[in-house]
Amino acid sequence: MQSKDHDQQGSSYANVGWYDREIREQPESLARLLDRGWSAIEEASKRIRAFDPRFVVVAARGTSDNAARYAQYLLGIRNGWSVALAAPSIVTRYDAPLRLSGALVVGISQSGQSPDVVEMIRRARTAGALTLAVVNDGSSKLAEAAELCIPVLAGEERAVAATKTYVGELCAIAMLSTELATDPSRRRELDVLPDRISTCLEAQAELAERAQAYMRADRFVILGRGYNLSTAFETALKIKETSYVIAEPYSGADFLHGPIAMLDRRLPVLAYSLCDRWTEETLHLIGRAQKQNAPVIAVSDQEAVLQEADLPIRLPPETPEWVSPMVAIVPGQLWAGALAAKRRAAPDAPRGLSKVTETW
Amino acid sequence: MQSKDHDQQGSSYANVGWYDREIREQPESLARLLDRGWSAIEEASKRIRAFDPRFVVVAARGTSDNAARYAQYLLGIRNGWSVALAAPSIVTRYDAPLRLSGALVVGISQSGQSPDVVEMIRRARTAGALTLAVVNDGSSKLAEAAELCIPVLAGEERAVAATKTYVGELCAIAMLSTELATDPSRRRELDVLPDRISTCLEAQAELAERAQAYMRADRFVILGRGYNLSTAFETALKIKETSYVIAEPYSGADFLHGPIAMLDRRLPVLAYSLCDRWTEETLHLIGRAQKQNAPVIAVSDQEAVLQEADLPIRLPPETPEWVSPMVAIVPGQLWAGALAAKRRAAPDAPRGLSKVTETW
Repeated sequence: MQSKDHDQQGSSYANVGWYDREIREQPESLARLLDRGWSAIEEASKRIRAFDPRFVVVAARGTSDNAARYAQYLLGIRNGWSVALAAPSIVTRYDAPLRLSGALVVGISQSGQSPDVVEMIRRARTAGALTLAVVNDGSSKLAEAAELCIPVLAGEERAVAATKTYVGELCAIAMLSTELATDPSRRRELDVLPDRISTCLEAQAELAERAQAYMRADRFVILGRGYNLSTAFETALKIKETSYVIAEPYSGADFLHGPIAMLDRRLPVLAYSLCDRWTEETLHLIGRAQKQNAPVIAVSDQEAVLQEADLPIRLPPETPEWVSPMVAIVPGQLWAGALAAKRRAAPDAPRGLSKVTETW
Repeated sequence: MQSKDHDQQGSSYANVGWYDREIREQPESLARLLDRGWSAIEEASKRIRAFDPRFVVVAARGTSDNAARYAQYLLGIRNGWSVALAAPSIVTRYDAPLRLSGALVVGISQSGQSPDVVEMIRRARTAGALTLAVVNDGSSKLAEAAELCIPVLAGEERAVAATKTYVGELCAIAMLSTELATDPSRRRELDVLPDRISTCLEAQAELAERAQAYMRADRFVILGRGYNLSTAFETALKIKETSYVIAEPYSGADFLHGPIAMLDRRLPVLAYSLCDRWTEETLHLIGRAQKQNAPVIAVSDQEAVLQEADLPIRLPPETPEWVSPMVAIVPGQLWAGALAAKRRAAPDAPRGLSKVTETW
């Protein structure tokens, strides 16, 4: 039982199980955020409404950059802002004096410690932007640097490959968007999220076994559109971090503009297709992929899509599209974990990575 | 000589050689743009200066989206604007009323025909934005939809995998930035570009032979930072389009935040490192890659970087960083062409692609 003891001490060595455990903690950590997080959200919203930003800039790296991608769609579609995903080096390495007055500049981070994101927020604040940190560590440098802070309340995350903090960042952004749009019906759609994620975790308990035929692939293409472009990017990142397998994420539209050429029978496609809005396009993409003999795994709540897939992964129906990325990422996280297990890789402590990455 | 005739008739069938020919045409087509393009640039600049945009949004797909990435850095660093790479579906599929008054919204396209980019420009114009098309086909729908138009003047491009229109789009953006910043010394740095590209084409004539050891790889990681992040993305896209080989592009910083875990001896890294600004970081990345036994190809003008690479690709020194993406892409285009030749693939007409891709 040596390894079990080891596990319980929370060592960061290989395969102690934090990654799987933190995936299962997601309903609980979202429930906590939805229970205790509203006061910070309301405070931030009041300030943002008074400031009345002309546009939004988000600075983030890694997993948090995928949360930024969700923010781009949600704050665009529901709140009408153009959202730029920042290139922090423009400020930190080229020292450019960006015109940011009138902008809301948001830093998203688990640790709140990446120097480039912190510096971007500091410089934006000096330039007259309203600054906001969405961060799990509420006492971090990022939280200090920004005028406003929304803590993600996910508790300590021990696996290097982030899961519960990602879903927490998405939920914090969803809460902020809802409060800014003052639409009470949408609060209810958020409140049922923890249950939906639990249901999905139960329904996908056998995913690793069902996916056996794909576990030897060393390359995947991951597709998503709209809100779930974030899900495609985050699934690809999880796969790369945990399993050292190449997974390339694309919007279905960008994929058609070139990369589709590389599909063949040795390159499986994992396609997210949530909500009827994307069904026709997904069916077109599946047809094109199958014409090039590429196997198709579909994560969807649409029967028409699931029927065409070589491996259908069914998500609970009636999840509104705008909150679906928090549910749809679950099979992606499990897929990455299954690939890692097959390869005896270590999602808790991938080679070459640490929990805090400092980049400029 | 049947195949030669075929070639001269410009058929779009496999291996007729347009891809290689258009790479070699790049100095000539840039010289044409630099000779005849300034009046359109000056006209657009006058209107943009009068409008005084608060921020910039760029809509583009595929290769043109990599030109948009260059615009994000150049218009940020030199002209001080926050540049958002648009997610056109926010407008075209979710029908969101974006607040774009005060924004300069730029559509970049070779064909000017992708419906989502055209629609984004139309909607932006209605919403009170100043709209600009940067487009090779000056009589296209995109050119019509936008208030201002800068034609790229690259002539007809026949290979599906774009080369001379990409460099032309970059050059048009560079000319616009220069005119807006009213810095005459920078015009001279542009004027010598065609010669620099010619020099680079000559110097890299043997690249395919030197690269033999890497031609069997079916996966690459492509790294770049700052201005040359665009070069990394465009090289990766060219490889995928022409050779059906997976190539994943990253900013060096994002790569450290997760994906570096996947490196091993079967996954070569092609790193762009132009200008001394990035030397220290690139050396760090090369060290990390070599620790994981990944072979490193470096495209650089810095001796310190070239010395550490398993395959050094030397670029002409003293190319200012801001124009270097137009030179640095040349080895990337040749690398993709060499991979395609080895695989008897068809860069002129990749499977599953056509010259105009219509996406919504």
